[in-house]
Amino acid sequence: MTLDEEAKAANEGFYNAFNAQSLTNMKEVWSDLDRISCIHPGWPPIHGYEPIINSWKGIFDNTDNMEIKLSDVETLISGDFAWVRCQENLFAITMSGVQASKVFATNLFQKVGEDWKMVLHHASHLPQA
Amino acid sequence: MTLDEEAKAANEGFYNAFNAQSLTNMKEVWSDLDRISCIHPGWPPIHGYEPIINSWKGIFDNTDNMEIKLSDVETLISGDFAWVRCQENLFAITMSGVQASKVFATNLFQKVGEDWKMVLHHASHLPQA
Repeated sequence: MTLDEEAKAANEGFYNAFNAQSLTNMKEVWSDLDRISCIHPGWPPIHGYEPIINSWKGIFDNTDNMEIKLSDVETLISGDFAWVRCQENLFAITMSGVQASKVFATNLFQKVGEDWKMVLHHASHLPQA
Repeated sequence: MTLDEEAKAANEGFYNAFNAQSLTNMKEVWSDLDRISCIHPGWPPIHGYEPIINSWKGIFDNTDNMEIKLSDVETLISGDFAWVRCQENLFAITMSGVQASKVFATNLFQKVGEDWKMVLHHASHLPQA
């Protein structure tokens, strides 16, 4: 795989963990550095491995029938840092039907040995069209 | 200067250009790569040098008496990529008094020769306390 393919695969691994609501896989996705950050849309920033994993546990515990499909995935890689930007197209099935929302995400991965580990997920709502 | 100091200086250069409303300095801050992105709070993403610089021109042309003070500045540097995260504390003087708002920013710089150039500014509003 090229570095570009590796970075996109790491990014897909993150969204696969989200869509599968797999805390086990989400734990594997993230770096264990103190300096890591996660910004869920509209939330204050969360820093550090344990608080970030706990936030995903809370989201998975309170979520049914939600899926993210990606579009506009682009990468910029330099050394052992990979920046992936993408649009998250979020679909949720609720009592009132299918609800859709769009989020812009900045994802940053750092290569540790053979693995690309997530060090930043910054997601913010796109304005309504 | 250490790499950490260099990255923080590049970050300060960006906010100095903002606070001075200097389009000339803002043009120097950004990388001329196609892949660069700027997300102003609540805006759709803007990609590429000319559209990003034009967005700053529009902001500067329509802004008076606004200042950003930074807090919680942290860096993570690897090779020639530097990720700087910070809280922007924005103050604006309006007819009805001083208005304050808080924004979380992800800034990414790439070293080009001796200079750190901005390749990403992703800013999103923090929730009201």
